Amino acid sequence: MLRSATHTPTVVTVEFDTGTQARFHAIWLRDNALDPETRSPGNGQRLITVGDIPTDIRIDAAEVVDGDLRVTFQPEDKSVTFPSDWLATHIYDHDQDADFGRTAPGITTWQRGIDAPVAHWAEVHATPAVKRNWLAAVAEYGFAKLTGGPTEPEALLKVADLFGYVRETNYGPYFEVRTEVNPTNLAYTGLGLQAHTDNPYRDPVPTLQILYCLENSAEGGESIVVDGFRAAEKLRDQNPDGFALLAGYPARFEYKGSDGVCLRSRRPMIELSPDGELVGIRFNNRSSAPFVDVPFDKMEAYYAAYRQLGEIIDDPAMGVSFKLEPGESFIVDNTRVLHARLGYSGAGSRWLQGCYADKDGLLSTLAAMQMATPEAAE
Amino acid sequence: MLRSATHTPTVVTVEFDTGTQARFHAIWLRDNALDPETRSPGNGQRLITVGDIPTDIRIDAAEVVDGDLRVTFQPEDKSVTFPSDWLATHIYDHDQDADFGRTAPGITTWQRGIDAPVAHWAEVHATPAVKRNWLAAVAEYGFAKLTGGPTEPEALLKVADLFGYVRETNYGPYFEVRTEVNPTNLAYTGLGLQAHTDNPYRDPVPTLQILYCLENSAEGGESIVVDGFRAAEKLRDQNPDGFALLAGYPARFEYKGSDGVCLRSRRPMIELSPDGELVGIRFNNRSSAPFVDVPFDKMEAYYAAYRQLGEIIDDPAMGVSFKLEPGESFIVDNTRVLHARLGYSGAGSRWLQGCYADKDGLLSTLAAMQMATPEAAE
Repeated sequence: MLRSATHTPTVVTVEFDTGTQARFHAIWLRDNALDPETRSPGNGQRLITVGDIPTDIRIDAAEVVDGDLRVTFQPEDKSVTFPSDWLATHIYDHDQDADFGRTAPGITTWQRGIDAPVAHWAEVHATPAVKRNWLAAVAEYGFAKLTGGPTEPEALLKVADLFGYVRETNYGPYFEVRTEVNPTNLAYTGLGLQAHTDNPYRDPVPTLQILYCLENSAEGGESIVVDGFRAAEKLRDQNPDGFALLAGYPARFEYKGSDGVCLRSRRPMIELSPDGELVGIRFNNRSSAPFVDVPFDKMEAYYAAYRQLGEIIDDPAMGVSFKLEPGESFIVDNTRVLHARLGYSGAGSRWLQGCYADKDGLLSTLAAMQMATPEAAE
Repeated sequence: MLRSATHTPTVVTVEFDTGTQARFHAIWLRDNALDPETRSPGNGQRLITVGDIPTDIRIDAAEVVDGDLRVTFQPEDKSVTFPSDWLATHIYDHDQDADFGRTAPGITTWQRGIDAPVAHWAEVHATPAVKRNWLAAVAEYGFAKLTGGPTEPEALLKVADLFGYVRETNYGPYFEVRTEVNPTNLAYTGLGLQAHTDNPYRDPVPTLQILYCLENSAEGGESIVVDGFRAAEKLRDQNPDGFALLAGYPARFEYKGSDGVCLRSRRPMIELSPDGELVGIRFNNRSSAPFVDVPFDKMEAYYAAYRQLGEIIDDPAMGVSFKLEPGESFIVDNTRVLHARLGYSGAGSRWLQGCYADKDGLLSTLAAMQMATPEAAE
């Protein structure tokens, strides 16, 4: 509820009944008007362009009506109501200075010692609240396990169906992760793999990865996940200048292990939004190409930061490890959580299937579920 | 060919027979060594991590052997040869200060007056050089037409097959662009649409879009493409502070026009790499959400820059327009080139099919073709 509203020609100042005050500009209010001539009632899309708003837009009147804000704009002589709750959730008149390298709201970073978020195949399919919580875990922690699934090839595609769409690549709609004779990728060997994000040589990277276990009786082959955002936070705390170097210059990544494929990217290892929010990690020793965008006089410090980030990532205190059983799978946010595997050999076999998908579908499905059935008190 | 090589424990300095001098650090050379213990001979992937390199890595000897550089590293007592040509293409010892908002090498910006790059369906399928040039046009100009294709539903999927993979979304593997009774998106009406990039509310955005014409006998409905990078360059030249605001703060985008879909993103309208290279444009009046990440005291200037960018984009001097005939299609780099359509109505019909794909596949196919058959003198 609003307590009061005052205005100048260019700014409305409102006071909420909580005592919070906030200012909104005329141009911002007009662009975001919620009336049916500005926003399509059917699909919510904006019907006007910024150029349709008069350059001399100004506020002629601003008053509180039934607790909401009613504004009259000139020269259009147009009156629009802005609900108090809507205004409260869209306040921008506050201190926007935030920490360099901070994580977004809703993200919780972690390291070894947490219980891996997990759901059961049958429940996640049968019970919307279980599915919602499982998707919410991927959004918050960047990974989650799924247990009790069928031991059938292509079952991983049903995991993607829970929330979105497979991203097909040169590796196919999905790929086999098992030892091959002439491997086009070191993933298809028994070698251990340092914790990494997948396909940093691809732009855009696949933002989700699903790894699904069909056989795992070999010695070794445990999976380890590491929170790249926690690793970045540690680097920032220990070596802020090194953090700034890894965020401030693009690395290069490359893959050309198969005929007809030559993938290259130029993106930083630590990606920040322009206002300093952590939005992505790319880390992969196998596919790092020569870094040629770092100035000569900063290259040694850049490499020192790269080494330090690698040490943090390799630190056993960072990783959550588990050995997948047949019918178990896990999903990682490939822009954040690194995955590793221990080497394996000897008798028995290890067969995983992997595929990529994208976060837009997962976060959309989650948001739609949260709007449909707001979270119970828990 | 190298003329000479000198070294300190941490740096090798080489002189090419062109007279160019360049320095390379010990740690950089060791990490990028090309020997079979460092790089898998089969697939080219790196077998070591940065942590495998001794912290006291140093250069013990550097000499020119048959025109190439031979370096011996201690304490590993490891000797590695770096071909002269490889060194020349990986020089980083030069002035890395480049213009803020510059375009990447290989990008040519344009505006009205250029001939739309075009290829013929049969030729692009039959002749590798035609296909390569068509893909190269998309890489350089961000769009290209394809004429003479079949007038069959789903033909657009065959366009994607030429270079990569469809990105399926909530709109399906592809979608129908024609007038609907209860449109979930304004694209499915006869309204004109301001030039825009598609799906900025999705993260990652689809980086390519294909629009394929099956019927187009209605009045109007012309397609217009606008180079968003040229528009950004113009804004930067006319209003550098405004350019910095649009690049410096995230915008917000949102779409929830269908049940079960709620897509949101927080990304800037003008996206730069951390070292200032233009990497993406997001511009869409219909799906812009309230901008809440711009400080209050910068909001009016931000909106002024947004309006100015919109005016540049809407300027008839910017757009290349054409009316698609049945069997014709075009592809746009959706991170760069905006597309618009004029409104249509009256007798006749307009039916396009659209789909999304990603640039990684296109650029990989192009790079592999260029390596296989280097460009003829032309």
